[in-house]
This record gives sequence, C-alpha cells and structure tokens, in this order.
Amino acid sequence: MRMKTRQEGLHPRPGRETRIPLISKKLCALATAAALSLAGCASPSSPEPARGAAPASVPAGPLVIERQGSFFIGGRDLRSDTLSALPAFASTGTIVVDQMYVRYQVPAAAHHLPMVLIHGCCLTGKSWETTPDGRMGWDEYFVRMGHPTYVIDQASRGRSAVDPTAIVGARTGRAAAPQLPNVFAAGREGAWTIFRFGPEYPKAYDGLQFPLEAQDELWKQMVPDWSAALPVPNPTVPALSALARKIGPAVLVSHSQSGIYPFQALALDKAGVAGVVAIEPGSCPAADGDMRPYVGTPALLLFGDFVDRSTGWWAPRFKACQAFAQAVNRAGGRIEVVRLPEVGFRGNSHMIMQDRNSLEVAGWLSGWIARNVERGS
Amino acid sequence: MRMKTRQEGLHPRPGRETRIPLISKKLCALATAAALSLAGCASPSSPEPARGAAPASVPAGPLVIERQGSFFIGGRDLRSDTLSALPAFASTGTIVVDQMYVRYQVPAAAHHLPMVLIHGCCLTGKSWETTPDGRMGWDEYFVRMGHPTYVIDQASRGRSAVDPTAIVGARTGRAAAPQLPNVFAAGREGAWTIFRFGPEYPKAYDGLQFPLEAQDELWKQMVPDWSAALPVPNPTVPALSALARKIGPAVLVSHSQSGIYPFQALALDKAGVAGVVAIEPGSCPAADGDMRPYVGTPALLLFGDFVDRSTGWWAPRFKACQAFAQAVNRAGGRIEVVRLPEVGFRGNSHMIMQDRNSLEVAGWLSGWIARNVERGS
Repeated sequence: MRMKTRQEGLHPRPGRETRIPLISKKLCALATAAALSLAGCASPSSPEPARGAAPASVPAGPLVIERQGSFFIGGRDLRSDTLSALPAFASTGTIVVDQMYVRYQVPAAAHHLPMVLIHGCCLTGKSWETTPDGRMGWDEYFVRMGHPTYVIDQASRGRSAVDPTAIVGARTGRAAAPQLPNVFAAGREGAWTIFRFGPEYPKAYDGLQFPLEAQDELWKQMVPDWSAALPVPNPTVPALSALARKIGPAVLVSHSQSGIYPFQALALDKAGVAGVVAIEPGSCPAADGDMRPYVGTPALLLFGDFVDRSTGWWAPRFKACQAFAQAVNRAGGRIEVVRLPEVGFRGNSHMIMQDRNSLEVAGWLSGWIARNVERGS
Repeated sequence: MRMKTRQEGLHPRPGRETRIPLISKKLCALATAAALSLAGCASPSSPEPARGAAPASVPAGPLVIERQGSFFIGGRDLRSDTLSALPAFASTGTIVVDQMYVRYQVPAAAHHLPMVLIHGCCLTGKSWETTPDGRMGWDEYFVRMGHPTYVIDQASRGRSAVDPTAIVGARTGRAAAPQLPNVFAAGREGAWTIFRFGPEYPKAYDGLQFPLEAQDELWKQMVPDWSAALPVPNPTVPALSALARKIGPAVLVSHSQSGIYPFQALALDKAGVAGVVAIEPGSCPAADGDMRPYVGTPALLLFGDFVDRSTGWWAPRFKACQAFAQAVNRAGGRIEVVRLPEVGFRGNSHMIMQDRNSLEVAGWLSGWIARNVERGS
C-alpha cells in the first residue's frame, strides 16, 4: 500500500549547480530520451532558490545508482560466560559490540558532498527512509540530488548489536538486577510532546505538518534505546569520526539525541568533517567550554516550529544550543541557528524529515549546504 | 575500503529470459549507448545455463531502480508500566512490538517474481547485503537480475523492535529475573562449527568458500537473538504471510533458523507465495504431519558442502528435511533437495550468500526459480 501512495515529482529542488558537474550532457540527453532521471541531469537554468521557496521538483523517474552496500565501522571483542542459557548455544564465547552499521548509496555522477544521516533517540536509520505516510525519505532525496548518502544505525541500535550478557546473567542468577542495562522505550504518549505533535497526547497543534493519519507507522519505527547503558561519548561518536575519515569530506547530519554527536566527533578529530547539520539537537556542547574544536567547520542548528510552546523540553534546549553557537561564533566560528518559520516553513514537528513538507525542507537544506559548506570549503 | 574491493562484472548470470519481458528494446539500446546497465537488458542470446556452470557475467555498471523504500508489516500495541527508569521518559505508555521491518528495491523493468530474503539466527537483513569481503550481496544481485527484492529484519531483531519491559521491570525490582527474555548471543567459537567453517574453531575445512580473511565483518553482523522469547510460530511468520499477500506472487527465501518460516506461512495461507527456497533450513515441518499445506507450491531445500561432516548438527537436520520433502512429494508436491556439490559447487559453508562463489550460486538459484517457479506457475 505504501508503495502506491508515493508522490514523486511534487517536491522542490534547490539550486545546486555548484562546483563539480561530473555528468556528461550526452548522458543526460540519453537519459531524458529514455525517460530515466539521473542525479545531476539538471535543467541548465535551475535558479538559486529563495529561502523557503519551492523552485522546482525533485528528479522523478528511475534512480541511477553507481554503487551501494553496507558495512560496519568500529566494534570491540567481548568475551563472556553469559552469552546463552540455551543448550544449543554455548554460554561462553566472544561477540562484538559497539560497532556501527552503515548502509550507503552513491548516485551515478555524484557531484555533491557525501551526507551521513544519524538518527535520534529510540529510533534507527529507518527514520530517514520512506516516511510514515509513504513518501520519499531524505535518504533517497539526497541521493537523487547527487550526494553519496550514508545511513547509520547507532551503536547498540537496530542492526548494530547490543550487549546481552547482563540479561542472560541476571536470568540465570549469575548477575544481579542492578547490572541490567538501563534500557528504555519511549511510549507514544510521552513521545507525542517530545516530537512536538501537540501540547499533550493526543491533541495536535494547529497547522502541524506531521502526517498524524500515518502515526502508527512511526510508532513501529521506535525501538528500545540502550544509550543510557553506554559510555559517554557514545561509541557512535568515534565510529562517526572514523566513517568521516573514510568517506569524507562529508556532511554529518544528526537528529535529536544524536544532535551533539557530530560536535563530539569534531572534538575527537576534524578530519573528514566538511560540515555539520544538527536537526533539532537534544543537546549541544556547553557554551562555556573550549570552542576551538568547533571553529572552522560550518554548522547549522535547524529547528522546526512550536519550539517556544515546548516550555519544558525544547525551549530551554534551543536556548542552550543558541548560546553554544554564539560562543563558537565569538571564537571565529560559523554556526547558524535557524528555526524553520524564519525561512518560510510553518508547522514543522520534531520529526522534520517525516513532516508533509519534508522534501521542501530538504531542498532548502541542500541549498544551505551548497552555499555554506560546498562553496565555502 | 570495502567499497574499493567490489568485484562487479566477474560473476555469472543465469539464463532468465522467461515470461515477462517488460523492458523495451529502445530503452535497452539507449542504456547501452549511455554505458548504463538496466536489469532486463539482456543479451538476446543468453543461454539456459548448465547446472553449476557460469554462463555470463552479472550486469555491471550503474543500477537502475524504479522505486525503493521501507515499511513495516504487522505489530501489536503493548501497554506497560515498565518502559523506562529514566526521569526524562515516562515509565507508563504504549509501544509496538512484533512488527517486521521490510526494505525493498524494485528494478527498472522488473520482469521476474519478487523475492523476499529472510535472515537466520543471530543475524539481521544485513546477511544478504554486501558480503564480509566487500562483494555484492544477494539483495543487489536479484535486483540486477530483474527481481523486486524485499529484505526483512525478523520480528524482535535489527530494526524490528524488541519488548524491553521485563528488563526495565527486573532492573527496577518490579519483575523477577525468570521473567527476563530468554535472549542469547552466538559466540564466534560456537558459530564456527554451526556455520560449517571447519570441524572446530578456528580450524577450516579444506576448500572452504567462506572468505575467512574477512570473518571479523561477519562477527559484527551478529546480534542477540530473542526468538526463544517469542511465541511459536514466530511473529515473523504471519508477517511474511501478510507481506506475500501484499507484494506477491513472491518467492520466499529463508535461511537457517528461518528455514521453516515459509512453510509455516504456507500453513497459514498459500496466497501470495509462488515458491519457497530454504537455504540450509535449521528445521523443516515434521514428515509425519499434514502435508496438504505444502503441496502445489514449488520449493527448494538448498544445502552447501560438508553437511555429512557435521554429524552433531547439520547431518541430522538434512535428513529430517529430506524426509519432509519426500513426504510432500508422496502427497503430490514438488520439493527438491539439493546439496551444492551435486550441482557442481564445492566448498560452500552454511553462509552460502557470503561465500566466495555466492553470486555463482545465486545465478544457479535464479535459473532454478525461472525453471521451477516462474515457468511452472
């Protein structure tokens, strides 16, 4: 069913004829004749979009992939005597934990920087894929716009293994209950306000862009979160740093819980990180700390609508992130803080990449990256 | 690094000019002129391959995707008072469990049946993606051969959420240890013999096809397995049945632990299931049961090499599955049991889709499906 509700060709594209036009005109002409769509086969007259405007449609038609696949970054061996209580599987042995799963697609004639899409709390890389109401996700959008795109599952989430040894240990009496991981799940009733769908479950804000009619598909995306059981910084952070060195220069795009991860990765190593986009960061580095790791890398802190109405959660987080950006900029950095209504988009929830206008926002974001990261780099 | 070790264009393709040639010759000519590769743009003289032969190469060059995305099947609401022990997230609320994550790609001019790839124990859909040594996975292979291809994460695995409420409950003293899920992890030392890499860890069989130099990448794929904590049949089974009804007629391709799932799905509902391929099934339906659900659907039980040497694990499983197939065939069914050495492939481990000759085997399998499922249906 979801496949049938896709609405390709209705979405805007940013102006993005920037600096690496690798695709040949001949190939574009052939593709057009064959009713194919190649990323990079732009209309030669694509204008630079006005902020918040919807200048043209996303390339529709077949998607041409140069290469795709998946791999892991990081991970450490863990030897344990409490792997299993089942007779068929040995209780003692060695597993790997802390690795980060990465799936990628490189479009034919990629001519923009690689993007790394990093999901938030209680979610997996699925966040960036097909939206709950069946529209194109940002993963495909950025590929179609000419960006090699990498979608990760945080360490201990999704296809990145968790450490189950304390569960087996507690179940078999070889570990105490307090040793169990501090795992948690976010119920929809609480997530409702954190995702800023409305003031309280199930009331919605007027003009909300999230497709509430498809909310069940979002709740199915949510998985238990082990981050409180992991060290700080999260093992995802060094893995992101290693990924950026491998594929970069790249733009790290984080969301919510992972908002701070690209900045923590910069503090580890600036190599490979061309720019940072933090979508509704749940936290930012402290504004009174050492700002040197964050100077010299263009960054955007992007928030949706209704932020001020979330007095208990998002309003203070926005202020703290604003203070961080100001501190970086005072030290000579280039961090921009944008609330979407300021650039013409209204009604966005915390789940911007799934809102009805998700691809319009992605188009604006693509333009921001072209102007501030690609041309500036 | 892995991206650079891909070896496209070295692999065989099966004869597959079967019954649904939807792609136009004009489009194929344009694609050829543009140095693109479209699934379905076959050489007109592609022969039917001999068993085990390597007749031609996999289509190389860019991959043309008609549409792709992801969605969930199934799931049930679970209300709990032990969702979280963290102050930021409510302990009481509603989550969804038992849903099955599905990612799909439909090639341009798909002209073969949809395939559903179902991973085994302690693994996720990653099993079918890029191999540990960086070669094309079966997920992409079957797309390139013209099959819409669906890769799932079993219920309670990977991107399909687990139920964490007993863990939170036990940690906070509101549940007893025996209520903890009977989760387990497979250590590499035990997995070594179950995966038939050799007689004991770390000794390898002579002629083994698994790329042991890249084994660390396999160990990183492994995740804790909750199947012993789930009802029988596994919630994946009704989800597979629902998926087949949604996208079918389709071929269900299972592996190891999930080997029996397509048969359990047939017992629920034959609708949408065009054929079954069980790669090294860990179990089969009992040979003395009701065979009627399995009659009328072509099926293949495919095993690798060294089966007889696995006296404690695979030899008895092979025998039981062989007895099942014989019982179905006596009742008028069409189940074929094949050990790869019988058709010219030697050295295959349990992880056939990751072995060095994985795409040669996939090519043979594609031919089997064309002959037995597509032409026969």
